[in-house]
Amino acid sequence: MKKSDVIEKILQHKLLQTPQRDQGQAFAPTNIALCKYWGKRDSELNLPVTSSLSIALPTKGALTSIIESHAKEDVVILNDKEVSPDSNFAKRLKNYLDLFRVKTLWRLQIDIKMNIPAAAGLASSACGFASLVSALNELFAWQLTKRELSLLARLGSGSAARSLWNGFVEWYAGTQADGMDSYAQPLAVEWPTLTIGILPISDAEKPVSSRVAMQRTVETSMLYANWPNKAAQDMKLLHQALQEKNFSLLGETAESNALNMHSTMLSSWPPVCYFLPETIAAMQQIWSLRRDGIEVYFTQDAGPNLKLLLHKKDKMIVKKYFPHADMINLF
Amino acid sequence: MKKSDVIEKILQHKLLQTPQRDQGQAFAPTNIALCKYWGKRDSELNLPVTSSLSIALPTKGALTSIIESHAKEDVVILNDKEVSPDSNFAKRLKNYLDLFRVKTLWRLQIDIKMNIPAAAGLASSACGFASLVSALNELFAWQLTKRELSLLARLGSGSAARSLWNGFVEWYAGTQADGMDSYAQPLAVEWPTLTIGILPISDAEKPVSSRVAMQRTVETSMLYANWPNKAAQDMKLLHQALQEKNFSLLGETAESNALNMHSTMLSSWPPVCYFLPETIAAMQQIWSLRRDGIEVYFTQDAGPNLKLLLHKKDKMIVKKYFPHADMINLF
Repeated sequence: MKKSDVIEKILQHKLLQTPQRDQGQAFAPTNIALCKYWGKRDSELNLPVTSSLSIALPTKGALTSIIESHAKEDVVILNDKEVSPDSNFAKRLKNYLDLFRVKTLWRLQIDIKMNIPAAAGLASSACGFASLVSALNELFAWQLTKRELSLLARLGSGSAARSLWNGFVEWYAGTQADGMDSYAQPLAVEWPTLTIGILPISDAEKPVSSRVAMQRTVETSMLYANWPNKAAQDMKLLHQALQEKNFSLLGETAESNALNMHSTMLSSWPPVCYFLPETIAAMQQIWSLRRDGIEVYFTQDAGPNLKLLLHKKDKMIVKKYFPHADMINLF
Repeated sequence: MKKSDVIEKILQHKLLQTPQRDQGQAFAPTNIALCKYWGKRDSELNLPVTSSLSIALPTKGALTSIIESHAKEDVVILNDKEVSPDSNFAKRLKNYLDLFRVKTLWRLQIDIKMNIPAAAGLASSACGFASLVSALNELFAWQLTKRELSLLARLGSGSAARSLWNGFVEWYAGTQADGMDSYAQPLAVEWPTLTIGILPISDAEKPVSSRVAMQRTVETSMLYANWPNKAAQDMKLLHQALQEKNFSLLGETAESNALNMHSTMLSSWPPVCYFLPETIAAMQQIWSLRRDGIEVYFTQDAGPNLKLLLHKKDKMIVKKYFPHADMINLF
C-alpha cells in the first residue's frame, strides 16, 4: 500500500480543498522514547515492528507557520533562513506535501522555528512533521482528530506520530496492512517530580543515519530476532511504572531498553556504534552516581548524546557532575 | 553430575596412584577465541551452550612445574613469589587438586611461571589449568590422551579445554550430560601470514568478573536467546574462512562474534559494559583504518582490551597507529 492511498482514506473529499484560511500555525514538542521505535514492519508507511512509549519535552520543539505561496515551488524557511530547495530537508518536506496535492495544486511558504540545538540529538523530524500536519489541518480547515493527525504525521516520520501531545504518549504498532491502527495516544499520567536532562556529547555528524541503522539492524543482526519480545516486556513494565509512579522501574526499563536497542546495532554488520568515548565516560559516571545512591538513569537514541532521567530534587547534584546538561521539567 | 564423578570416569584406577616421578612440567599457551565461549549449559562441569574456536598464542602462556611436597598444604608459587594460601588463586588450585586426591593423599608444590602481563587481558586461567593438568599427567604418569586432558582442564576453567594445543582449536559443546563429548581438538590449518596484536587498554580491575557477567547475561538478557544461533553460524563461517584462507571472512566473523557477545552483556541488567572510553576510541581507529583499506579487525573478551587480527605485512603500518600493540606471530 502507498502513502497516498492512506491519505486518501483519511482525507477523502477534503483532498479537493485549497487553503481555507490565511495561515495555519502549530507547535509540536519533540519527544524522547522510553521504549524505542526500532524496526519497521512496513517501510513505505513507517509502520513499526513494536509499540513504543515516549515523553514529550513541552518547551522543545517546532513551531510551524504556513501560508499559501504564489511562487513556483514551496518555500522553506528554517529559523528565519531560507533553505535551498535542493537540500534534503526541503526535498523531504516537498515530497511529503506532494502527497496532499494530488487533486488540487497549491504551493506553501513553510516557516519553521525549532529551538532544538542540533548538538542535543533530539529528533527534529518528529516535532517537524507533527507541527506541519497540525498547521496543514488549520490552513485547510480539515478538522481532523488528533488521532488522524498522528496517522498523517507518521507518514512523514515514524516518531512524529507521538509528537502531537505533551506528556506520556504511546504509539501502537497495530496489525493492519494499511496502518490505520498504528497511531499514537496520550496517557493520562502526570509526574511533576520527573525531570529530563539533555546531555550533549558531540555535534559531529552521525556516521550512519538512523534510517540506515534501523534497516541494517533488521537485516543483519541475529540478536534483533528477540527485540520485539524485549520491547513488549518493556511496554508492560513502563505502564506499570507509570501507574505506580515507580521511578526506579521507569528508569531501569528505559535505560535497559536503550541499551538493548544499541546492542542490536552493535551486533549488526558492519557494526553500527553510536557510542563515542565521551558517551561511555558519561555512562560510567551515571552508573557511579547510582552506586552512590543518586537515582539517575539514561536513554540514548541513534546518536552519541544521552538523555538523563532523574528526580527533580536531584537536579542540582546531577548538574554538579554534568554541568552541560539542560534540565527540563516535564509537567 | 559432579566434577569428581567425571574425573572418576576418566582416571578410574589411576586415581589410586601417588606421584610416580620426581617432577611434572608442562607449558600451555593462552588462547584467543574467534568464536566465543559465552554461556554454560552446565555450570558445575563448565559445559558450554555453544562450540567455540580459538587460536593459541604460542609464546604467551603458563609453564607449570609440580613436585610432591611434604608440607601440610599445597604450596603455590607464581612467578617466583609464594602465593598466600588464603588468596582466591591458591584456593581455586587447591579445590581443583582436591578433586584428584579422593583415594590417596598427597600435597604439591606448584610453581607457575606466566608471561602474560595482567594488563594484556589474556586468559590466565585457560593456560594455567591446561598446563597444570599436563604437569599432573606427567607427575602421576597417567598417560592420558590430549583429549582426556582437555576434558580435565575444562573442569578447572572452561576455556582451558582449548589451551592444550598450538594453532587453531575447536571446543565442542557436546550434548551429553556428563560432558564426555565436550572436549577440544586442534584443526589442521596453518596460516603463517596471520598476526595477532595484543592491544592493552587498561589494567584497572574488571567491574564484573567474566564468570558473573556470563551468568548475568544468560539470566537477564533477552537478546541472548539468539546467541546460540549466531555462534553456530559463526562457527560455520570460521571453518569456511580457515579452509579458503579468507582473511576478510575470518576477521569479520571474529569481530562480529565479539561485538555480539558484548551486545548480550550490554543488554543484561544491570548492564555489563567492558567498553572503556579508550576501547571505543581504539575501535573507531580500527574502523577508520579499514575504510582506508588496511585490513585490521579486532576481538574483545570480558575486559577492556582489544586483540587485533591483521596480515603480517601490515604489522608496521598498524604499529604506527597502535604503538603499544604487542604483535605476535602465530605459526
